[in-house]
Amino acid sequence: MEGHHKEEKTSDVQSPADPGHPVKCSPVIIDNIPLNGPTVNVLASENFIHQSMSIIVENAIKKATDVREKVCEWRSPEQLKELLDLELRDGGESESEILQRFKDAIRYSVKTSECLKFNELRSEHRDTTLGKWLPECFCSSDVEGHLMNPENKHLLRFSLPGGSMSNMYAVNLARYRCCPDIKENGLSAAPRLVMFTSQECHYSISKAAALLGIGTKNVYAIPSDERGKMIPSALEEQILSAKSEGAVPFMVNATAGTTVLGAFDPIDVIADICEKHNLWLHVDACWGGAALVSSKHKHLLKGIHRADSVAWNPHKMLMACLQCSAFMVRDKTSLLQRCHSARASYLFQQDKFYDVSYDTGDKSVQCSRKPDAFKIWLMWKALGSKELEQRVDRALAMARYLAEEIKKREGFRLLMEPEYANICFWYIPPSLQTLPDGPELWEKLHKVAPVIKERMMKKGSMMVGYQPHGEKANFFRMIIISPQVSRQDMDFVLDEINNLGKDL
Amino acid sequence: MEGHHKEEKTSDVQSPADPGHPVKCSPVIIDNIPLNGPTVNVLASENFIHQSMSIIVENAIKKATDVREKVCEWRSPEQLKELLDLELRDGGESESEILQRFKDAIRYSVKTSECLKFNELRSEHRDTTLGKWLPECFCSSDVEGHLMNPENKHLLRFSLPGGSMSNMYAVNLARYRCCPDIKENGLSAAPRLVMFTSQECHYSISKAAALLGIGTKNVYAIPSDERGKMIPSALEEQILSAKSEGAVPFMVNATAGTTVLGAFDPIDVIADICEKHNLWLHVDACWGGAALVSSKHKHLLKGIHRADSVAWNPHKMLMACLQCSAFMVRDKTSLLQRCHSARASYLFQQDKFYDVSYDTGDKSVQCSRKPDAFKIWLMWKALGSKELEQRVDRALAMARYLAEEIKKREGFRLLMEPEYANICFWYIPPSLQTLPDGPELWEKLHKVAPVIKERMMKKGSMMVGYQPHGEKANFFRMIIISPQVSRQDMDFVLDEINNLGKDL
Repeated sequence: MEGHHKEEKTSDVQSPADPGHPVKCSPVIIDNIPLNGPTVNVLASENFIHQSMSIIVENAIKKATDVREKVCEWRSPEQLKELLDLELRDGGESESEILQRFKDAIRYSVKTSECLKFNELRSEHRDTTLGKWLPECFCSSDVEGHLMNPENKHLLRFSLPGGSMSNMYAVNLARYRCCPDIKENGLSAAPRLVMFTSQECHYSISKAAALLGIGTKNVYAIPSDERGKMIPSALEEQILSAKSEGAVPFMVNATAGTTVLGAFDPIDVIADICEKHNLWLHVDACWGGAALVSSKHKHLLKGIHRADSVAWNPHKMLMACLQCSAFMVRDKTSLLQRCHSARASYLFQQDKFYDVSYDTGDKSVQCSRKPDAFKIWLMWKALGSKELEQRVDRALAMARYLAEEIKKREGFRLLMEPEYANICFWYIPPSLQTLPDGPELWEKLHKVAPVIKERMMKKGSMMVGYQPHGEKANFFRMIIISPQVSRQDMDFVLDEINNLGKDL
Repeated sequence: MEGHHKEEKTSDVQSPADPGHPVKCSPVIIDNIPLNGPTVNVLASENFIHQSMSIIVENAIKKATDVREKVCEWRSPEQLKELLDLELRDGGESESEILQRFKDAIRYSVKTSECLKFNELRSEHRDTTLGKWLPECFCSSDVEGHLMNPENKHLLRFSLPGGSMSNMYAVNLARYRCCPDIKENGLSAAPRLVMFTSQECHYSISKAAALLGIGTKNVYAIPSDERGKMIPSALEEQILSAKSEGAVPFMVNATAGTTVLGAFDPIDVIADICEKHNLWLHVDACWGGAALVSSKHKHLLKGIHRADSVAWNPHKMLMACLQCSAFMVRDKTSLLQRCHSARASYLFQQDKFYDVSYDTGDKSVQCSRKPDAFKIWLMWKALGSKELEQRVDRALAMARYLAEEIKKREGFRLLMEPEYANICFWYIPPSLQTLPDGPELWEKLHKVAPVIKERMMKKGSMMVGYQPHGEKANFFRMIIISPQVSRQDMDFVLDEINNLGKDL
């Protein structure tokens, strides 16, 4: 098997601790963050992984299938909150503390694989009462405390299977607030509803509009500036224009961290416009939301506390396991429940012996759900807010480093300065470097990235995506997330692209 | 910790192999299936679990985070089909074969935790190219070959996060076939669309109607007979009635295995009506679909090959891990793609070097998805169709046994004969047994099940659900799935309910 650092390895000094990473001499420091070498040693966690596995086997498999054990060690939601210490803190916990949390979580969960559990139409491991309740328990203070302005209560209502679903929930809620009768009567008798989003937004916004019967042409695309940010004056123009057409505007989607350019819409200004026109403000912060854990970078989302709903995917920048999307809502009038409830009597018995307001089931569109909130809670407990902040800061410093390197190197051209972890650039092979800037160059350049990508995939050396964008020819887009990445890897990426494409 | 078989244990002969299960003398055989003792020994799989874990650690964590290893060992979809042997067969494979498949799957998957993978806005383990392609590769013959009439091609298009999502996809597809313009124009200019489903259907049908802007009142509830099956003549009446109101019927949902009573709508007769009126026929077989693997019970779904779409959850009766819902569509005109595509150029590049028709991404409503299809494929490989069939047959024989026991025992009353694995019954405490059948009895009985359930949960001895249904007072509903369950467990459930409630 051919390794992708192989070529360089012979000429580099090897670090004995991590033979895969060639260590070069010059230390690079950006924003006071040293970028040499990875900050996480995966091999060191091997023991932890094996211990976790043993806990699963002993507690969630063996004990949970033993009929002599209890199906459920019942505790009230209030007791669970205390027993499990749901609070999220600055510091991380030790491995042994995390393993204990893991055991506790299994202990107080319903043993769905127990053969004397005949409660639902399914039977398997690790679905948890705990997981059902966690999203609600979070409400108290935790995620919002760390992510949102404490004066403004964004409640983590749900973990959902992906940002597309979170954005879809937002559109549905916004519509429900605007016209609650639609739930029962449908849209056929309703006025034409219109929503607004920048042309740079994620495609799930338009998918949601199609699915929800709003129609893709009723998603008004607001132009963005050169940096990819929504132009607020253009938003206001289009709201007025929609109203003059007799349509009913109901929602604005602002994107915090666009998919291609990593741009942040100016939330504060957009919030002013939404307030003025009484529109639901949703912030799709699936990608950019992680900047909120960083005191250095959270300014990118200034104004997010004014949003009616926020979607944020810890499975992106924070590297929680797929899938883990948080959907937060500011409303406190049980809008979510009223919007989504179906009141199936076989599921949501009102004569239960505990406070049924903890049952999240009837607030979601889905029925069975996985307790995805558990993943982010446990990850946050293990790392602490400080470590998460350092990871985000380091990734963004690394992005800055790569951008500087691109500017220095011949044959590379930066599309624009990165604002977040997206670095967009062209590679111009030597044969094209003499061509003047014009249609011929761009037409030829458009074909370069796909060929390099094919060679890269077949060699297996790395994966860097490319895409066209608007009028712009195919360019590479680097996304930097992992704390394992070092600035040597950045150098390698540029070297490798040059190696793979210099003959083109 | 108090075990729930504790009371009986002292008085029973213990099986040395499985000390948790008291073994009584009389062997019980139903439909030629012996029901004593569990058929699966979970402890025997401990070694297998540990070996799987080691493979994950070595191949999916250590190797996948080593920069000297390839990010991706690229193979074309056609090569992968051969390398992985996607065919599903009657016989199961050995543990070592399954472990090898596991290794292969990891080997040919993109190493998403590799630090030189900068392709997407996320980074974590075990998302797989393989997983993306598996659902498409299945199309060839496998699941449909085993589950559907071979002359009729139901294609497994997707694994989705739950049956509610699958049912929602069905409603959206049916609507798109009826009025494709709605995707772009929305419903505000469309006629009033109407769909039909039995009053016994899962609540996700009405949730989908609310979400999709069709409106819950445009879901016409068709009456069911005493057994819980849709009455076809009533369906036809309501279709004609909707048309006379000027509405546009577009879809019928038939339920194969209702949630409470486990009833099967008469699909064949309903299909006749759908053909006559040109309506999309969706079968919600999320719960009952498993009967298709049994030659003895598949008659319950007679006519399912005529459906336009089918939803089926292997995570229910077949016990695949949550979440694993299969959505199958008969259409071969790429309806799914046309209905859901958004053609985001940054994701679905058309200038890729392989056949992009394998990219399933633009056919789904979600963006990132987990490769859930992998779970059912691997499970099917491990067990084989024959073993799956035996499990279903045994669960249904066990349900029959329990129903017979209920009829024999004083204080227990069966709602109706089970048709599937739902056994619905009342427990009547001694104090109520002398009351005449009338409002007073039912009013008092309504309060019995919730109290027993509370005691059961707090004791942790077992979990059996209860609910009211229509005019019927709260009753217990047993669901039998697990091959670990024995007929002694059935006896225990009835004994325990009596123990918990005899003083009421």
